[in-house]
Amino acid sequence: MGDGIDGIDASQAAGKQAFATDVTVRFGDCDPAGIVFYPRYFEMFNNLVEDWCAQGLGASFRELHLERGLGLPTVHVETSFIAPSELGEVLRAELRVQKLGGASVTVSIRLAGLAGEDRVRASLALVMMDLKERRAVRIPEPLRSRIAAFA
Amino acid sequence: MGDGIDGIDASQAAGKQAFATDVTVRFGDCDPAGIVFYPRYFEMFNNLVEDWCAQGLGASFRELHLERGLGLPTVHVETSFIAPSELGEVLRAELRVQKLGGASVTVSIRLAGLAGEDRVRASLALVMMDLKERRAVRIPEPLRSRIAAFA
Amino acid sequence: MGDGIDGIDASQAAGKQAFATDVTVRFGDCDPAGIVFYPRYFEMFNNLVEDWCAQGLGASFRELHLERGLGLPTVHVETSFIAPSELGEVLRAELRVQKLGGASVTVSIRLAGLAGEDRVRASLALVMMDLKERRAVRIPEPLRSRIAAFA
Amino acid sequence: MGDGIDGIDASQAAGKQAFATDVTVRFGDCDPAGIVFYPRYFEMFNNLVEDWCAQGLGASFRELHLERGLGLPTVHVETSFIAPSELGEVLRAELRVQKLGGASVTVSIRLAGLAGEDRVRASLALVMMDLKERRAVRIPEPLRSRIAAFA
Repeated sequence: MGDGIDGIDASQAAGKQAFATDVTVRFGDCDPAGIVFYPRYFEMFNNLVEDWCAQGLGASFRELHLERGLGLPTVHVETSFIAPSELGEVLRAELRVQKLGGASVTVSIRLAGLAGEDRVRASLALVMMDLKERRAVRIPEPLRSRIAAFA
Repeated sequence: MGDGIDGIDASQAAGKQAFATDVTVRFGDCDPAGIVFYPRYFEMFNNLVEDWCAQGLGASFRELHLERGLGLPTVHVETSFIAPSELGEVLRAELRVQKLGGASVTVSIRLAGLAGEDRVRASLALVMMDLKERRAVRIPEPLRSRIAAFA
Repeated sequence: MGDGIDGIDASQAAGKQAFATDVTVRFGDCDPAGIVFYPRYFEMFNNLVEDWCAQGLGASFRELHLERGLGLPTVHVETSFIAPSELGEVLRAELRVQKLGGASVTVSIRLAGLAGEDRVRASLALVMMDLKERRAVRIPEPLRSRIAAFA
Repeated sequence: MGDGIDGIDASQAAGKQAFATDVTVRFGDCDPAGIVFYPRYFEMFNNLVEDWCAQGLGASFRELHLERGLGLPTVHVETSFIAPSELGEVLRAELRVQKLGGASVTVSIRLAGLAGEDRVRASLALVMMDLKERRAVRIPEPLRSRIAAFA
């Protein structure tokens, strides 16, 4: 495993500000074993990043994509599925900023069960893209400062 | 990034036997930017693992799950999204065995475009589980030997 | 088109009690045309039915499936996609009971935009199933009475 | 139920030309009851329509969307889920043209099990749209004639 995952632990130990929300495990998220089908966790991650942009950073995906021509694709992920989650459970989803580069930002994500126990831990590298020119661009202000507040 | 990804390169350089199939990028796989929505790649990975089990190892998910009470959940993934893929493209999906443990097997996956160029590279750790007792179990023979043939 | 859809209009005109919730259109719900990919509306419907069971009827899918061995599969749907919905929109989802049979319940669903305009209208027939015996069973009390309160 | 479903039976009795393909039920298609989660059937339908356009009509979604600015959204569906389908089953998917209008085409879809028995029957109304102007347009030749060959 990469050292990105260890990095998550370190940042959480340091008590950085997290963006957090609740996620309900839906019937459609679960597989024949009755637990979350793992690709669905990545949809939960993407929803979390969307909510963070809209509520935490003040720039919704709608605004970024449709008005400003900017995308925030995920270019690298490392994920550990530590314990299964079942139908109807409400998971706590937390996002922290691990690293802020010029065009990129690496976030750590943690999904936890009701007792606070780890279910999933992930590290996602996102890159700001000009959708028309299909190239990476520097994350503009004031978005950059707002992201930094989570790091 | 973890060194798992470097491990993929190494195993491919060594010319190990790969299980390969074609994957068409569907309308429903694509996002408003016209490219594959990244959680969909993990469904492609899971389909590839299913096909490998059924066609490459002679033990379908149906047989494993419904008849033998065995699951093969993914416990860790590392994935690099190297270049976007568009609606209607046919990707080459290749799976190789990186490491075979007692209850676990780590596979590397590569999705490539028509010209053979990298689109996605991933490393997945899978664990054989007794679904009833919800614990890891040693991968049984002759499945183990068949897996080893891809390593 | 079937007469089920006309039935929706009639029941709504009569002012029946609705179960309602809000649904955010996610990035992953949208297709390359930038609007909701229609199969995703059915996941929204299923989530709405889940929320109705848990919050409106006091019997969550988790309780029904895992504790009582009961499922509520959808056996028939009629849906009109009246106007497209875009990334980031918040839709109003309303569910009403159209018809309550012995083992079945037919609900009408309406998704509306911010100005209250129709986006999607649907009629879904659900049947209560004994999951072990795989046959329809009469909807038990007090679930039946609670469903009737929405009709 | 609407009379569209009866219409499907009639057209099939008359022996119209069908576009057909096979669909494997994937692990990710199945719910905790071990059967296909019904929204997934609509993804299968959309894949079938895509394959029909590309292979049956000679105009792929990619060509229509990216080169010609034309979309083919689904505006109305009626679907009966007759019998459940399980993990690993290979379903036969058939598409027939029920009705060809100016801008619209209504197709009937049937998914059948290995013994030819009905699993799902559906009727889908599709409309050709100019994606830029967001309005319905007459289905152009030679697409129209090719569609007519399936009616």
